[in-house]
Amino acid sequence: MKVGFIGIGRMGSAIAGRVLAGEHDLVVYNRTPGKTDELARAGARVAASIADACRGREVVVTMLADDPALEEVTLGEAGVRDSLARGAIHMTMGTHGVAAVRALDAAHSAAGQILVAAHPVGRPDVAAAGRLGLIVGGPPDATRRCAPLFEVIGRRTFQTGPEPASATAVKLANNFLLGCALEAMGEAFSLARKYGVETQVLYDLITDGLFAAPAYEVYGKIMVEEAYDQVGFTADLGLKDANLVLAAADLAHLPLPSANVLRDRLLGAVAHGDGARDWAVIAREQARAGGLD
Amino acid sequence: MKVGFIGIGRMGSAIAGRVLAGEHDLVVYNRTPGKTDELARAGARVAASIADACRGREVVVTMLADDPALEEVTLGEAGVRDSLARGAIHMTMGTHGVAAVRALDAAHSAAGQILVAAHPVGRPDVAAAGRLGLIVGGPPDATRRCAPLFEVIGRRTFQTGPEPASATAVKLANNFLLGCALEAMGEAFSLARKYGVETQVLYDLITDGLFAAPAYEVYGKIMVEEAYDQVGFTADLGLKDANLVLAAADLAHLPLPSANVLRDRLLGAVAHGDGARDWAVIAREQARAGGLD
Amino acid sequence: MKVGFIGIGRMGSAIAGRVLAGEHDLVVYNRTPGKTDELARAGARVAASIADACRGREVVVTMLADDPALEEVTLGEAGVRDSLARGAIHMTMGTHGVAAVRALDAAHSAAGQILVAAHPVGRPDVAAAGRLGLIVGGPPDATRRCAPLFEVIGRRTFQTGPEPASATAVKLANNFLLGCALEAMGEAFSLARKYGVETQVLYDLITDGLFAAPAYEVYGKIMVEEAYDQVGFTADLGLKDANLVLAAADLAHLPLPSANVLRDRLLGAVAHGDGARDWAVIAREQARAGGLD
Amino acid sequence: MKVGFIGIGRMGSAIAGRVLAGEHDLVVYNRTPGKTDELARAGARVAASIADACRGREVVVTMLADDPALEEVTLGEAGVRDSLARGAIHMTMGTHGVAAVRALDAAHSAAGQILVAAHPVGRPDVAAAGRLGLIVGGPPDATRRCAPLFEVIGRRTFQTGPEPASATAVKLANNFLLGCALEAMGEAFSLARKYGVETQVLYDLITDGLFAAPAYEVYGKIMVEEAYDQVGFTADLGLKDANLVLAAADLAHLPLPSANVLRDRLLGAVAHGDGARDWAVIAREQARAGGLD
Repeated sequence: MKVGFIGIGRMGSAIAGRVLAGEHDLVVYNRTPGKTDELARAGARVAASIADACRGREVVVTMLADDPALEEVTLGEAGVRDSLARGAIHMTMGTHGVAAVRALDAAHSAAGQILVAAHPVGRPDVAAAGRLGLIVGGPPDATRRCAPLFEVIGRRTFQTGPEPASATAVKLANNFLLGCALEAMGEAFSLARKYGVETQVLYDLITDGLFAAPAYEVYGKIMVEEAYDQVGFTADLGLKDANLVLAAADLAHLPLPSANVLRDRLLGAVAHGDGARDWAVIAREQARAGGLD
Repeated sequence: MKVGFIGIGRMGSAIAGRVLAGEHDLVVYNRTPGKTDELARAGARVAASIADACRGREVVVTMLADDPALEEVTLGEAGVRDSLARGAIHMTMGTHGVAAVRALDAAHSAAGQILVAAHPVGRPDVAAAGRLGLIVGGPPDATRRCAPLFEVIGRRTFQTGPEPASATAVKLANNFLLGCALEAMGEAFSLARKYGVETQVLYDLITDGLFAAPAYEVYGKIMVEEAYDQVGFTADLGLKDANLVLAAADLAHLPLPSANVLRDRLLGAVAHGDGARDWAVIAREQARAGGLD
Repeated sequence: MKVGFIGIGRMGSAIAGRVLAGEHDLVVYNRTPGKTDELARAGARVAASIADACRGREVVVTMLADDPALEEVTLGEAGVRDSLARGAIHMTMGTHGVAAVRALDAAHSAAGQILVAAHPVGRPDVAAAGRLGLIVGGPPDATRRCAPLFEVIGRRTFQTGPEPASATAVKLANNFLLGCALEAMGEAFSLARKYGVETQVLYDLITDGLFAAPAYEVYGKIMVEEAYDQVGFTADLGLKDANLVLAAADLAHLPLPSANVLRDRLLGAVAHGDGARDWAVIAREQARAGGLD
Repeated sequence: MKVGFIGIGRMGSAIAGRVLAGEHDLVVYNRTPGKTDELARAGARVAASIADACRGREVVVTMLADDPALEEVTLGEAGVRDSLARGAIHMTMGTHGVAAVRALDAAHSAAGQILVAAHPVGRPDVAAAGRLGLIVGGPPDATRRCAPLFEVIGRRTFQTGPEPASATAVKLANNFLLGCALEAMGEAFSLARKYGVETQVLYDLITDGLFAAPAYEVYGKIMVEEAYDQVGFTADLGLKDANLVLAAADLAHLPLPSANVLRDRLLGAVAHGDGARDWAVIAREQARAGGLD
């Protein structure tokens, strides 16, 4: 397929690499130019502008950091909406708010284009191996047209329905579940500590059985070792995600009390100067709340 | 070893069966007599009273339903404390409050006896196979003396420290983590539903990766199928546990906000008539709170 | 009336003084004897025992610190239940749990006695002036018989219904409302501070209008002045009350999320060493949670 | 003073009426023209456009419904920013988010204009009587220049500091305190009901003493009478305010757990179809959560 790719960070780079490896015709664009060098060497054409990355493409993928970036790149002057052909597909892969995705969907529809949301689950190394899970929402015929890309990018797709925002909601729900697991572990570890138990013991117990899964194994280990400075995903970003999930719930008139707890804990961590640490640091914030620090 | 066993319900029966299979000398007692028949056929002596089940025993195990039962059996007249020899061990295996376990510990110490807490993790079928995890707290020499029993009962022990209540706290923390996983899933499923996504899709996603563990696989399935009438553990019992964990946290001056959320959801489920259903029914209560039912 | 009075602390002393002033025949008892001297000088007979304070009395009032004290004094050997005549009234005035009051009610009923709950609202100086509000629950004919006492003790009665525990629930609800007002003020003050506003300004605003009432005026002032060492009611006692209201709600299968917030904030205050300070100190704990301290 | 006034709803009309009564030179503008007729009859000039309402004015007041309206009117083409003279003052009186007010402040500063926030406390009838409280934030010399207006509009000003958003934060804190009082009352009433107590009894108790203030008297009465269809302020608007206060806290890295409770209760009310009712309807939503409805 003729593919454009805008937003070449760590994830974007890994995913675009898979597209190339799948022998698709790839044009890439990044605001900061250096990031595209490696893909250029691998055979991608580097576009001079967003418009250039959209021209003549069947699908343009965006992998952007947040809602303002998405809005600027897609709805700004000479942006994706202005540049994409009628009938072409914009595949958004970044984690955004459902309101932003819905606004984008409406804008593309008005322009005769199609929005597909395809949110990856997995880290850059998983992406580079083509082993991502992909949460996919959009009109069935459009998602079918994207199948060749899904095949090279991911290991498995999870189809959420015809509305792109439905995939976004599921992506947010997944991140929310992870945050809740972290918060619950933080609380459980602080309870154990209050009763004189080493956190390693509780960790061994839970990862031995009911919770023998990466969410608990990986993040529980960080908490036990208090290795919050080896950062996978910061508390600041966790807070951003918690706000996105609460906004999605708000829009749908749904109370999510566990998301409140998670958000407040992240806010406390940030207020106490831990925003740039790994978001597992909420275990420390929980301990602080109980006078353990 | 010479072992007494008081409290022959489903779990007690399975564990006592393992003790017998380990060729220990076993005396059993249950308030309701019929429950001991099978163990009697397998070689256990049925005691006529609590005192009878304690006399001459090196270890007396209790597996009782709640704190009042524990208090009555152990501290009541002609109970375990009155009947156990000095230096003998009372091994409590039921899920109790830390305050009750601490009171029991003090009472046994005053009588020259030793309390060990050994809380099983696993269901009766796991117990019957001798595959339980055991959360063990108590004086090191006493827990060492119990090793022959742990070997026949369980697959692995998790040593929490010299205070029996430390094992109780860890057992409660484990149950609490499970409750939080259920609550978070309930919230996540309701969010997905609000965006028109079938719960099965979110289930497939989470059990495919980060959460590929029994806590999510087993209970998530119940939620997707709304099979709340196939009861493993009732909402009423979940509420009892949530209150125990909150009491343990209170005693230790520790806020546990996720436990509040869990407790309130269970209270709501019970208030709406779902107390006797499986505690995964909190997913329905969450949906109700969002106007989805 | 022939009245017995057990529990002569600051409130008990003030209320018993009013009973005497109303020319009732008063016998008083306190575990620590010195506390009754002043009442003796004013004409009360000092009883030698609980039983002595109950003998021949139409009404025995208790004003006790907590549930264990209530249980011991009333249900212990030679306690109120054992000593009071059939048909006589036990009027409990202390703040207790609804479970304790219900158990007491059942015990008295079984002994042919009548329990009335009459919970005072107001401080000792208000009590000494006979200006208390009284929250009264109990069988109508029994509360009618107590009317002469209510007249000398209080300014106004609030009749909650035939069950004594209904008065207890209302007393707890009142204290809970106060705690929530404190918590909300603490949160609002911390928000103002984050935006560079002096707490006095917000205080002036709220007490000028919507919240021109003692709950906000008195406690808001303590928060503005951070005068937490002038103790009216400690955080420790506030925590006890928060637990009582949550237990009452639990028994009734009612989620009370604001009570969770209040309880957690008090737990945090106690964990950080502020348990003996005035419970308005939760404003400081809230500030701490936001990194303001 | 030469005053422009944009946004003539019920509050705007009452406040503009006071400005006229104070013999100031008033130009008014409203998107929907009919609303300005009465003020025209009283002597105001009706402007043809926003620009017309700003031209030659020392102060332009806006009283707008929400952040998008504020943004459009002030930052849109030929809006207030484009039309106001250098050195002139924009006085914003609507309830907005702190982020919106800060953005506006920056925009006016860049244009050499001055933003003052002056948030009214009180209803339209209070406004018509010139008895409003005014929460005022802005540069001291600018707020001094506005004093002649404050004198005719309000009874008293509460000066929060040099940043306009500080007044916004205090306005939000005030509304938040009211919401918390409503939520706490709703919870307390449901507890009373669970124990068979009529809500009127609890209402009488609290308004007799600690809580004898409009917040409790006015809204408590609505709850007792379940008069949710006599709407003063809707649950939908309450939810909007709750989100604004949470956004303000988020921006300042401050957990506000009571705001979470309030927001979730309002979300539940809206989800159950009560969004257009008076926001006291959260008492019904609380009852629903406890199975009382």
